[in-house]
Amino acid sequence: MSRRFVSQIGPQESIDQIFLVSDKQLRPNRSGNLYLQLELSDRTGSVGARMWNANEKINGSFENGDYARVEGSTQLFQGAIQMIVTRISRVESSEVNEDEFQPLTRTEVDRLVLRLGEMLRGMNDLALRNLAECFLMDDPFMAKFSRAPAGVKNHHAYIGGLLEHTVKLMEVVGRLAPCYPELDRDLLLTGAFLHDVGKIDELSYDHGFSYSDEGQLVGHLVMAVRLLDDKVAEAERLAGEPFPRETVLRLKHMLVSHHGEYEFGSPKLPMTLEAVALAFLDNLDAKLASFSQQLRDDPNVDSHWTAYNANLRRKLFKGTHAGDGAVVEAGDEK
Amino acid sequence: MSRRFVSQIGPQESIDQIFLVSDKQLRPNRSGNLYLQLELSDRTGSVGARMWNANEKINGSFENGDYARVEGSTQLFQGAIQMIVTRISRVESSEVNEDEFQPLTRTEVDRLVLRLGEMLRGMNDLALRNLAECFLMDDPFMAKFSRAPAGVKNHHAYIGGLLEHTVKLMEVVGRLAPCYPELDRDLLLTGAFLHDVGKIDELSYDHGFSYSDEGQLVGHLVMAVRLLDDKVAEAERLAGEPFPRETVLRLKHMLVSHHGEYEFGSPKLPMTLEAVALAFLDNLDAKLASFSQQLRDDPNVDSHWTAYNANLRRKLFKGTHAGDGAVVEAGDEK
Amino acid sequence: MSRRFVSQIGPQESIDQIFLVSDKQLRPNRSGNLYLQLELSDRTGSVGARMWNANEKINGSFENGDYARVEGSTQLFQGAIQMIVTRISRVESSEVNEDEFQPLTRTEVDRLVLRLGEMLRGMNDLALRNLAECFLMDDPFMAKFSRAPAGVKNHHAYIGGLLEHTVKLMEVVGRLAPCYPELDRDLLLTGAFLHDVGKIDELSYDHGFSYSDEGQLVGHLVMAVRLLDDKVAEAERLAGEPFPRETVLRLKHMLVSHHGEYEFGSPKLPMTLEAVALAFLDNLDAKLASFSQQLRDDPNVDSHWTAYNANLRRKLFKGTHAGDGAVVEAGDEK
Amino acid sequence: MSRRFVSQIGPQESIDQIFLVSDKQLRPNRSGNLYLQLELSDRTGSVGARMWNANEKINGSFENGDYARVEGSTQLFQGAIQMIVTRISRVESSEVNEDEFQPLTRTEVDRLVLRLGEMLRGMNDLALRNLAECFLMDDPFMAKFSRAPAGVKNHHAYIGGLLEHTVKLMEVVGRLAPCYPELDRDLLLTGAFLHDVGKIDELSYDHGFSYSDEGQLVGHLVMAVRLLDDKVAEAERLAGEPFPRETVLRLKHMLVSHHGEYEFGSPKLPMTLEAVALAFLDNLDAKLASFSQQLRDDPNVDSHWTAYNANLRRKLFKGTHAGDGAVVEAGDEK
Amino acid sequence: MSRRFVSQIGPQESIDQIFLVSDKQLRPNRSGNLYLQLELSDRTGSVGARMWNANEKINGSFENGDYARVEGSTQLFQGAIQMIVTRISRVESSEVNEDEFQPLTRTEVDRLVLRLGEMLRGMNDLALRNLAECFLMDDPFMAKFSRAPAGVKNHHAYIGGLLEHTVKLMEVVGRLAPCYPELDRDLLLTGAFLHDVGKIDELSYDHGFSYSDEGQLVGHLVMAVRLLDDKVAEAERLAGEPFPRETVLRLKHMLVSHHGEYEFGSPKLPMTLEAVALAFLDNLDAKLASFSQQLRDDPNVDSHWTAYNANLRRKLFKGTHAGDGAVVEAGDEK
Amino acid sequence: MSRRFVSQIGPQESIDQIFLVSDKQLRPNRSGNLYLQLELSDRTGSVGARMWNANEKINGSFENGDYARVEGSTQLFQGAIQMIVTRISRVESSEVNEDEFQPLTRTEVDRLVLRLGEMLRGMNDLALRNLAECFLMDDPFMAKFSRAPAGVKNHHAYIGGLLEHTVKLMEVVGRLAPCYPELDRDLLLTGAFLHDVGKIDELSYDHGFSYSDEGQLVGHLVMAVRLLDDKVAEAERLAGEPFPRETVLRLKHMLVSHHGEYEFGSPKLPMTLEAVALAFLDNLDAKLASFSQQLRDDPNVDSHWTAYNANLRRKLFKGTHAGDGAVVEAGDEK
Repeated sequence: MSRRFVSQIGPQESIDQIFLVSDKQLRPNRSGNLYLQLELSDRTGSVGARMWNANEKINGSFENGDYARVEGSTQLFQGAIQMIVTRISRVESSEVNEDEFQPLTRTEVDRLVLRLGEMLRGMNDLALRNLAECFLMDDPFMAKFSRAPAGVKNHHAYIGGLLEHTVKLMEVVGRLAPCYPELDRDLLLTGAFLHDVGKIDELSYDHGFSYSDEGQLVGHLVMAVRLLDDKVAEAERLAGEPFPRETVLRLKHMLVSHHGEYEFGSPKLPMTLEAVALAFLDNLDAKLASFSQQLRDDPNVDSHWTAYNANLRRKLFKGTHAGDGAVVEAGDEK
Repeated sequence: MSRRFVSQIGPQESIDQIFLVSDKQLRPNRSGNLYLQLELSDRTGSVGARMWNANEKINGSFENGDYARVEGSTQLFQGAIQMIVTRISRVESSEVNEDEFQPLTRTEVDRLVLRLGEMLRGMNDLALRNLAECFLMDDPFMAKFSRAPAGVKNHHAYIGGLLEHTVKLMEVVGRLAPCYPELDRDLLLTGAFLHDVGKIDELSYDHGFSYSDEGQLVGHLVMAVRLLDDKVAEAERLAGEPFPRETVLRLKHMLVSHHGEYEFGSPKLPMTLEAVALAFLDNLDAKLASFSQQLRDDPNVDSHWTAYNANLRRKLFKGTHAGDGAVVEAGDEK
Repeated sequence: MSRRFVSQIGPQESIDQIFLVSDKQLRPNRSGNLYLQLELSDRTGSVGARMWNANEKINGSFENGDYARVEGSTQLFQGAIQMIVTRISRVESSEVNEDEFQPLTRTEVDRLVLRLGEMLRGMNDLALRNLAECFLMDDPFMAKFSRAPAGVKNHHAYIGGLLEHTVKLMEVVGRLAPCYPELDRDLLLTGAFLHDVGKIDELSYDHGFSYSDEGQLVGHLVMAVRLLDDKVAEAERLAGEPFPRETVLRLKHMLVSHHGEYEFGSPKLPMTLEAVALAFLDNLDAKLASFSQQLRDDPNVDSHWTAYNANLRRKLFKGTHAGDGAVVEAGDEK
Repeated sequence: MSRRFVSQIGPQESIDQIFLVSDKQLRPNRSGNLYLQLELSDRTGSVGARMWNANEKINGSFENGDYARVEGSTQLFQGAIQMIVTRISRVESSEVNEDEFQPLTRTEVDRLVLRLGEMLRGMNDLALRNLAECFLMDDPFMAKFSRAPAGVKNHHAYIGGLLEHTVKLMEVVGRLAPCYPELDRDLLLTGAFLHDVGKIDELSYDHGFSYSDEGQLVGHLVMAVRLLDDKVAEAERLAGEPFPRETVLRLKHMLVSHHGEYEFGSPKLPMTLEAVALAFLDNLDAKLASFSQQLRDDPNVDSHWTAYNANLRRKLFKGTHAGDGAVVEAGDEK
Repeated sequence: MSRRFVSQIGPQESIDQIFLVSDKQLRPNRSGNLYLQLELSDRTGSVGARMWNANEKINGSFENGDYARVEGSTQLFQGAIQMIVTRISRVESSEVNEDEFQPLTRTEVDRLVLRLGEMLRGMNDLALRNLAECFLMDDPFMAKFSRAPAGVKNHHAYIGGLLEHTVKLMEVVGRLAPCYPELDRDLLLTGAFLHDVGKIDELSYDHGFSYSDEGQLVGHLVMAVRLLDDKVAEAERLAGEPFPRETVLRLKHMLVSHHGEYEFGSPKLPMTLEAVALAFLDNLDAKLASFSQQLRDDPNVDSHWTAYNANLRRKLFKGTHAGDGAVVEAGDEK
Repeated sequence: MSRRFVSQIGPQESIDQIFLVSDKQLRPNRSGNLYLQLELSDRTGSVGARMWNANEKINGSFENGDYARVEGSTQLFQGAIQMIVTRISRVESSEVNEDEFQPLTRTEVDRLVLRLGEMLRGMNDLALRNLAECFLMDDPFMAKFSRAPAGVKNHHAYIGGLLEHTVKLMEVVGRLAPCYPELDRDLLLTGAFLHDVGKIDELSYDHGFSYSDEGQLVGHLVMAVRLLDDKVAEAERLAGEPFPRETVLRLKHMLVSHHGEYEFGSPKLPMTLEAVALAFLDNLDAKLASFSQQLRDDPNVDSHWTAYNANLRRKLFKGTHAGDGAVVEAGDEK
């Protein structure tokens, strides 16, 4: 039987299928009875769930990041769908079709890797092209790079998210460069490729997403510098001549300054044209991804506005037609 | 005799030609004698000048924003060229070829106006196209819009600067839009067109550049809203049907929020995807223009770095080859 | 039977009367059962209420902003009165005496409108008096202006609140002006009249209070400018001569700068004496209203201090006698 | 011969009369010759002056805060009057009519002291009236209090300035109180009287104005608390009964919180209605005094705007007629 | 039977012993039934507790700060121990061994008092030694000083905490001083002794910990100045000669500036070497105490990281071995 | 003839000896004549100097960082000594006794290096001791490390300044550690040793002091990480076993977080006890060094206060005796 995706599920449905589990918590209600609160997701989104009368044994039978078969039914609370779980059991990842659970299919990931190579190998700057090649031909690196998410919970927080964000940013650079001839296009393209490369070790993403200890204590801005140093040394070995000093400096500067402001964790402010452009475009891409997701996922179906987001210090405008169609769709679901 | 442009002038040259005057000040030296300090410019840049033994009569014989014939010679002080003026007299603007004094020639301005119309008339959204047409066919508006600078002293502070900045921003929008299908391209394009439209009355640019009283007291973000309201009313008259309410709201929101943060004078934070994108891209374009100009005009010829800029809280990196060529050029000038 | 006002209700009372409903929410408890949480108010204050074993049908039978007959009883929790509702049903507004539910009675509103006219018509400046008259004789405007609240939840958030806040501010201006002869009294008085005039459309107050879409996207500071422009045009038509340009500029400046700081949404800082005075006095009136209300409504009856207010980053001091009388009153209620 | 006041002096005048000296500096010009730079003032304002070919002996013959007979002539530089001094010699203060040099005459000071007593003795609160009496009958205190300036260089920086600012603030409180019945009028009045009382020792004003060491190290907010403690003890001795504890606390709180924000040196935020009102009204009075002075003294006669004030982060609008009359007056001076 | 300390209690234990009670709240659960939520502590830590089916009578039978005999059992929720209380009754403090409930035993307090006297009497500066003696021989002062906590809930929030923090800081000063001969060791030592002395009246600690009204309205920085003034007067009486003026000023300055920044409630920034050193060392000691406590008490046993602390805007790193041993211990408890 | 040190030079002296040159500028005076402005220093301080009637040839005959023989005389301007130079010529560094020009003599540097080794080799932690040894036995590293300044113009800006600051900080750590047993003393000691190690390449100090390009673009916090990585690898080679992972992480974290706040360029906030302690102690040492220097060098001899320091947003208190002795000394100099 074909899957009913999260984005299709309405209220008052019976459910019996596999989900990816996260944010699991065993909590007492106010009568002292335990219940399980968790998040169930597939590639189209996630839905909150509760299992009443849970206990430590059920809680211990699966972990965040596991797949689980879930039985139960849905209801509408506070304008949002919630699932009441009656049964839940762990499922081996070998038994599921992972493409149903990751926003990016393997085919899409393959396409993005191809495009990445194409753009990097199309650069005119020989030194940068050689440097890029050292990354591209490093299989363990590429395996991590095409699997890492770009974050733990904000934008692009899914397997392949780092790759998708990187390639998107490089596309943007490629399109914008002709408008600004004063920018060194190849330098900016390489900076876009490498800006978040430290995330392959900053994040841990084998089983659920989290920061690694090194990620939290040192950070991807600093960790990327070592990755770059190693590949520059390799590029020099292969080319048999020194890599241009200034180019390395400019690349490192882009890595350590790409958050744009001290308060966002940049130890340096952007001081070259390419570093300024990278910081802005990276921020724009992240903001558009995050705003889009909020507009898409906002549970507040009756309002023209999303719920207030304290981080952004604002609500977002969904438009005067928000909610109109929603009523109809809700009817359709029955 | 062909003009020796500011960008070509070296030390120890005799000068006798016309310049545009600005920043004029009559000041006493410490012996109580008066001297005139002023800035002389043409389309390629500006140079500081001093006329010793000046008096109130000379000072009163021309104004900032005037053209003047200047005789004198140049010297090198603190790494920068300075002109010592021995004679100066006002020249009618009818006697000069203004193309030598404006970064944008009339031909370039005409080309930009054409491109503006082309992009606006190429939009798919009928209502927005009609609205744009109301602006394009308003000759007094277009005369101001293609003459206004984009600022008084930062980026694009020259005749036609507003038009150039606007068209550049629209080009960027056009190129970026395919990367972000969630953006309403035509809405963003119209927002880019109108975002700084209030500057046609915020600034005063008939004789030198300054803020108008209304510009300082009310500001171009608010002034633009009235211009938009008037044209929407006109578009409704011409079309014989109401302009979509939500579209007007979204446009107004882009106008009042495009500085992106409260501290930069936006009374509202961007709360739609298009408003966020507009604020970022406008800021990026302004920053690249202003950084490029600083890198180009930095007087500090011996250093890899520009002078410290207190506004930006940083120096900019000119590169390790900065100054190398400068020595040679300085030799050439003798 | 005469009404028992919210301010008179104690614990352990049986209740059966009409209230105004707001902040309604249908929520599941931790056993998955639904309950209704709501706020019940009349002109003397509001009280939190819960209805156990609610469902979507009850929830759908009335809206925020409706009047409802409520049966139930009160109890004391965490030092505050809470109502447990057993029955609730919608009542037509035609069946209630609205004066019992609005802090301002119609008589009080009428008196405020009279006082407003009196002060405006008493100004010496002919142009400003004419301008004011254009507002006063605009019936639809006056209807909205005397009905709008001054906010959604902070100070003066009730029908007529905008009018009351405005007239109070004008009284303050009238009293203060003799102390500061350097202030243009009539200009400041007109500024006080118009400073929040944009709120008539920024807020939506026919059924509960909220921001309109235009209110959130554009804001009352900007919206007021158009209202002013329209009336200036009308005043010019009526007077047959141009309205003084500088006076309009000074008024607009007061409108757009009256929040006093960029971070509070002013696109301009106050740059005239009258604009500075307006921003301070408006802020003082709002702060006194809001502090008074917190001191009055603080539920924490045992303490000399109100609860910590995160917005204000402080607690307020109620005095060392706070709580003393409260015990006696609580006894009285039984 | 009657005095030519600073406010009347124009360019190209010969001067021979007495001024008050401040901001004296002996400096080398760039040829290594010494000149004296100083500020000359009387009750109507101050004018910059320079004496060429000065030396250490002349420099040592008088101090800041001295009166001096000055001979020389005036000229117009950068839109401002400057005096070129040819002779200068110290004059005993016994030889001058101090009323010509202080913005407040002795008669005005006497009137302010009377008014202060009138308002304090008119309070209804017996305890506060007794406390106030303890201050009023303390002659050394009153001598200092009616002589101290309110600041070193900003608002009310002249002999009697503290008294004038205090009485003005109390007048404002008296007028405003009827609008806000929730305020304790007498408490607020006493707070207004005492808020800056610590300045009598924070500042040093016997010879020019400066901060005392204690003023800079401890500050008038803290110093005022001890003055209050002493007088409360005295009031208790005189009344033979304890002063109400809570009233003392509320007064102290007003003293230590009246700068309104931590960043302005308040160790506490205002947490009572009277403390909030005091902080706002004090700030308003200071801002109006300082803005008025800037508008009045702005040297930039040709502009509608004052020079940019970095502290206020803004220019002030002088009006569109600024400069019109100035030209005529300048002509009158010859 | 010997006490089972909080630090030793595991899940699934039966408990019947005395605790110190704080943070008591009577709250309704979502079915409208009341329960009691409270914090139970002894000298080794505190544990959250709930008593289901509570009522106002039980709630009224004891207060925060009381000792109570508690019967019930423990369970593990969300990684933390929680106690379910079945019976609770107040116990007189005379019946308990207070050393089991205070982090500092009386012996430890006595030792700290001795050490305090030793360090103060060992100073070389005669005036400061005399001043210190006036504090040391004031028995009521010393009783309060050795009993007061250093805070309400952050660092050193226990009986004797102020003394412990003060002596620790003085030890640090004593050890550091030889490294910085430019510091006046005795002045800094006296400043360290007195910096928080105002807390003896700022806090109320007879029954639970809270701020006194004066503490909240005036603050310990200002309150300490009066304590100092009184003792200086006494020292002058005893010595029969004036106390050095500058030394008093420098001490007062240290008291009012020791929070280091305006935003932390210092009305003055540190402007002497000793004031700077005091502010830094006080802050360091407080931070180390608070970080250590968080690392020790973090309930999140499975993680290398503490929970996110919003005040500090960070998590703390517990180390990669955190949680390893915890599992074993949990097993031991059964 | 023995040297007259800068600290001994008074007004009206004839001078003919060698100085270290910095801050050289060729500038026009207001008559268009060139003069040379420069700073002359030895190990005891620096003095401003001017050479009138200079030219480009003289200006080109020596560089900042050179030694030069200077003839001229001193005068007192604005309370400070200034030198008027009549002759200046470059001197080879081989001809001077460098100990007269560097605050630290070679003997002092040698002593500091010894002490550094002693402390590092005295650590109990074997892994850290091995790591330290890898630094200590790296001669080129130690040569740089004992020569680098700690800054370009603030604290410890002299040859050997980095070493002196580092050893001082380690001494402080050694003394403080026994007070805080919760700190890992050896880890903190190693962190203190390495915290500024990146400055050996961040700064350029062969000829005058400045930031290297890499220093400005990448920064010493990031550069230090690579130095650490290299030595850890070496330590592993030598020990034949892996260096403890967690120790490396903790060290790196201390390096990247030691500025303590984002706004000071730390990409991470301190999240371990040792990182917090390091950030505080480093800051304290830097502040005491910088405050001491300001108190010592303040040119304002007549005042109890230093000049206002905009960076610190304060003046510093020199004491009430400041200036008293200065008058006498000035008399002595004649």
